[in-house]
Amino acid sequence: MEIDVGNALASVASPGVSRDSLERLDERVARAHERIEAGRAEGEHGYAALELPVETDPEPIHGAVDSLEIDPEALVTVGIGGSALGAKTLVDALGSGEVETVFLDNVDPDWVSRRLANLPLERTAVNVVSRSGTTAETLANFLVVREAMEETGVDWTDRTVVTTGESGPLAELADGHDLPKLAVPDGVPGRFSALSPVGLFAPAVCGHDIEAILDGARAERETLSGSLFSCPAYAYGATTYALETRGASVNAMMPYAESLETFAEWFAQLWAESLGKDGLGQAPVRALGATDQHSQLQRYRAGPRDTLVTFVTPRERGEREIPDAGIEDLDYLSGAGLEELIDAEFEATEASLAAAGRPTVRLEIDSVDARSVGGLLYGMEAACVLAGELAGISAFDQPAVEWAKRATRGLLGGGEFAESEAVAEKTELRIGGPSGASMR
Amino acid sequence: MEIDVGNALASVASPGVSRDSLERLDERVARAHERIEAGRAEGEHGYAALELPVETDPEPIHGAVDSLEIDPEALVTVGIGGSALGAKTLVDALGSGEVETVFLDNVDPDWVSRRLANLPLERTAVNVVSRSGTTAETLANFLVVREAMEETGVDWTDRTVVTTGESGPLAELADGHDLPKLAVPDGVPGRFSALSPVGLFAPAVCGHDIEAILDGARAERETLSGSLFSCPAYAYGATTYALETRGASVNAMMPYAESLETFAEWFAQLWAESLGKDGLGQAPVRALGATDQHSQLQRYRAGPRDTLVTFVTPRERGEREIPDAGIEDLDYLSGAGLEELIDAEFEATEASLAAAGRPTVRLEIDSVDARSVGGLLYGMEAACVLAGELAGISAFDQPAVEWAKRATRGLLGGGEFAESEAVAEKTELRIGGPSGASMR
Repeated sequence: MEIDVGNALASVASPGVSRDSLERLDERVARAHERIEAGRAEGEHGYAALELPVETDPEPIHGAVDSLEIDPEALVTVGIGGSALGAKTLVDALGSGEVETVFLDNVDPDWVSRRLANLPLERTAVNVVSRSGTTAETLANFLVVREAMEETGVDWTDRTVVTTGESGPLAELADGHDLPKLAVPDGVPGRFSALSPVGLFAPAVCGHDIEAILDGARAERETLSGSLFSCPAYAYGATTYALETRGASVNAMMPYAESLETFAEWFAQLWAESLGKDGLGQAPVRALGATDQHSQLQRYRAGPRDTLVTFVTPRERGEREIPDAGIEDLDYLSGAGLEELIDAEFEATEASLAAAGRPTVRLEIDSVDARSVGGLLYGMEAACVLAGELAGISAFDQPAVEWAKRATRGLLGGGEFAESEAVAEKTELRIGGPSGASMR
Repeated sequence: MEIDVGNALASVASPGVSRDSLERLDERVARAHERIEAGRAEGEHGYAALELPVETDPEPIHGAVDSLEIDPEALVTVGIGGSALGAKTLVDALGSGEVETVFLDNVDPDWVSRRLANLPLERTAVNVVSRSGTTAETLANFLVVREAMEETGVDWTDRTVVTTGESGPLAELADGHDLPKLAVPDGVPGRFSALSPVGLFAPAVCGHDIEAILDGARAERETLSGSLFSCPAYAYGATTYALETRGASVNAMMPYAESLETFAEWFAQLWAESLGKDGLGQAPVRALGATDQHSQLQRYRAGPRDTLVTFVTPRERGEREIPDAGIEDLDYLSGAGLEELIDAEFEATEASLAAAGRPTVRLEIDSVDARSVGGLLYGMEAACVLAGELAGISAFDQPAVEWAKRATRGLLGGGEFAESEAVAEKTELRIGGPSGASMR
């Protein structure tokens, strides 16, 4: 990964960060790096994520793939949030090959039923992923999948891999049915687990080189050092931190590659759950180049000066020539390739934001391949950890999501919780519908 | 569509709008409505969009479907931005039935090649959509599709429908090959064209009841009136405007239905291109319930007080029972359905944001059906037009995207443009890669 923060400098953009400010910030980066190094060395909660490229053993993952008693046409991954997004990001980036991949990461009954109805169940493998083994959405969906298989006479126990913590209902289930079990690594929050069995099993089923993914991450790990000027990941974390303190409360992640659309979604989780606390944290927005030039770009160029646009662009792409149209107005496209068109659109969009004085950052990768994507994910994780250190925030917890979990459980009769009682006290001001406007 | 803005009131949330402020704002809503009425009556540019439910004639759309000389297994829609998102939203919401739908709305060569390689070209219909007939991305992709068909001996002229303006290269192409032509309605910007042939052809090919879509939109149009307290669409437009002026610079659109994920993307374009100008405009963020509770929710509850979360929730869903797990900790799920789980998660999330004093708005629809979705799209368009009036912004242009279009054209040798020369003058501060840190 290479980064270019030139268009985030105060000489180009507002908000922007001056070269002098970056130099001063670099002293704090050095101290933050010491803190991060100590956390890594001790395998401290969260910091352990930055050791995954060297800690993750690919052998059990290959073993779990080999243990499937079918040659799968489809793979259903049942998980939600960090238990699904890493694997989905890797599979969408690298392609799913001959295997149809489905991620059951929502509990919408219509959608779940439709997805299951369209699957070749007798040739479908299952990976159920939950550290605690009690995640309501994941367990509910897994029970639905299991029943659907049983109802069609398919033995779910010969094609199910369980990814979970050391104990809990899923671990017990795996032991009871002698299912292959992969470990959710200790001390690593879900959103940082892409480079562990949580993220790597699905790409392995699709035939991807998971060693290359880890190798790319290891190369990025080697760059972690006490200066943002020698570490692309830290340069990104420090620049986004500096821009946020100067007013960039929105971070639009805009890869110029269709296959990285899910990466932008993964980034949104990483950024929002890790840094969105104590009244701080950029709002991550998923965008996609070139498509969203025709959607979000208007606001980024002419709306409030509150947005950093982060581009990800591969240096190499496939080629696809644009045939001659025989239309005068389109002569300039003839003989070019789609790859030249999308690259020109990227450069034009980057320049158009600079011309309007809006900050952008460019992340360059060699191509959308296993090694580069592994490095990209690791780089964003390290950037996020650094940004948390600089902001004085604990990047590894997500306390604000617990309230709704307790309320949900209470609403479904799973216990008495003050939170579920609060649901009934909602203030209403309704307009439309059978009753017209009314206030309670 | 019914709206509940109770959780956006100042008594619940900060930022929030007091009941008194809403009453005062209602006088401005009345004046804005007069302006909108005048624009609609005169078919004025942009305002014409609000007349589409009564102006759109479904007959030519059915005629174009009937004119296809194949019974399509797949439909490729070639368009970008507003020329694709309305149709994609409707097809994703209502399902594509027996027809595989592909939207070529990006110029990524790897992705385009992969999509084409997987299509049954001899049973694939094509809809190419561009008002001007010169949109670079759309024309490039259309030429690629046409060539791929020619190379496999498929006659593209017997299954291609052209949706375009009265003149231009695409109109000429249609006339030259005697292709069925659908009209992009006059005076309607692309992002407001979902309820015209631009948005309705694809759902018609998939067998959906496009009259019901228009019917739902007509019902919403009937509610437009001089008071936000009697019009759900205006209540949404006025509330979002009031919240933006009080600090809610981010609007996270979070439908609790997997099939409405693309609707959130459509909304993002509508909101960003219409309202993101003159230094104003909320940053629209696409979210999805319940999935993004495990991703974005942390920030919305505990990050900066800059975000309005807009929920869309259907009153009716399909059912899917959660089987008994025989696991004590999960007993509360047994006998419930996925529909109860997702509904409980929605109510819990809404209440959790209220408990943290964060503003939310709830949009309720009957179910994700043709009539309700038609009403939802129309309601959001009317809300957007009203918000533009209140902010003193022209909602119907998108001047900030022109710069990059000229730069792209210049970069590809399509003429001399000052914009493309600016691209070469980029400020660089590179870190990583072969050269290490460097500044130019």
